[in-house]
Amino acid sequence: MHQYLNDPMKIEKKSFELIAGELPKHSDIRFDEKQMLIVQRMIHTTADFEYANLVSFNNNAVERGLNVIQNGCRIYADTKMIEAGVNSRVLSRFGCEIVNYISDDDVKAQAVEKGVTRSTIAMQKACRDNRIRIFVIGNAPTALYALLKNIEDGEASPDLIIGVPVGFVGAAESKEALLQTDIPSIVIRGRKGGSTVAVAIVNALMYMLDNSR
Amino acid sequence: MHQYLNDPMKIEKKSFELIAGELPKHSDIRFDEKQMLIVQRMIHTTADFEYANLVSFNNNAVERGLNVIQNGCRIYADTKMIEAGVNSRVLSRFGCEIVNYISDDDVKAQAVEKGVTRSTIAMQKACRDNRIRIFVIGNAPTALYALLKNIEDGEASPDLIIGVPVGFVGAAESKEALLQTDIPSIVIRGRKGGSTVAVAIVNALMYMLDNSR
Repeated sequence: MHQYLNDPMKIEKKSFELIAGELPKHSDIRFDEKQMLIVQRMIHTTADFEYANLVSFNNNAVERGLNVIQNGCRIYADTKMIEAGVNSRVLSRFGCEIVNYISDDDVKAQAVEKGVTRSTIAMQKACRDNRIRIFVIGNAPTALYALLKNIEDGEASPDLIIGVPVGFVGAAESKEALLQTDIPSIVIRGRKGGSTVAVAIVNALMYMLDNSR
Repeated sequence: MHQYLNDPMKIEKKSFELIAGELPKHSDIRFDEKQMLIVQRMIHTTADFEYANLVSFNNNAVERGLNVIQNGCRIYADTKMIEAGVNSRVLSRFGCEIVNYISDDDVKAQAVEKGVTRSTIAMQKACRDNRIRIFVIGNAPTALYALLKNIEDGEASPDLIIGVPVGFVGAAESKEALLQTDIPSIVIRGRKGGSTVAVAIVNALMYMLDNSR
């Protein structure tokens, strides 16, 4: 009864062609080739062209990110959804892995004890692991603030922060605080962002290094 | 250095107040109290007020969804991200569980063999389990089409479809096909949607039944 495209690679190719064709109507920002792959994948994931106007690439972020992925590293994600969404099959080819501590028993206990978010405590735990070179924050401004505090205190020195927490309380402010630093970062300014956007960015970086998928 | 709110329940309360205050600027659609809780949670998740204008509640969807959750059921999600994002602690209180078959070995093998998406094959597998009463599609139009085909063939009769696949190829069309049926559904029309939106809807339904979290 229903006629539709049912080949995954054809669907993706056709989607990216449509996005590339429509993008100039929504944004006149110039991106380099690698940045454009990230922008297109964010739009592919959200069907929201506004992301082209909200994204900010800072301090050689793409090159730094590609470099540490290629050398194998741990990536910390602030949500289980990001952990689930990143293509772990491709990630493992580079000797990389993605981790999240939000459901760890010690994290839960400390968050209750201190009356702060689990995201905050989980981030503090992540900052103690210096194999983690990329931090991906798609949900909690409190996680991003905790990360910035740890960096100020000299307890973490990431190669890349993907700073895309979403929301109405603290999200925009936390991302502006990140932009005040000289850390390599990919940021969505304002309230928008979220786990699917974070996943799109990580996957876009990996796919630049791996065309065999 | 940074001053910010760090109490999870206060952050959520403040967010919902901001959303309720701003919503009338973006939409003049009237929602009943339960629908409004879903709309607000979708906006909370995306920071995108357009969702208020894209959502469609059909055939007593909210009541049907609440009823089957309360009686304990399986929920099929078309992505691992949805499975990861739904609050499984609250879900288990109702004797419910969420499942996803996208990474099952038999699904992978059949998808390659037939040259169709894994989402399609996984959905066919889900339709053979009559404990699954709610289908949540946040990603793949092909999964929604496969579900509709199974329903037409009398092989599935869900109590609720949350139909929010995102994208540029087939997503809008698949959701319009769903709207042609008399199945209870919550749908985001057009291209937008995605796993975070799907999770927001499922969690909003659960939270209406559970204020103890």
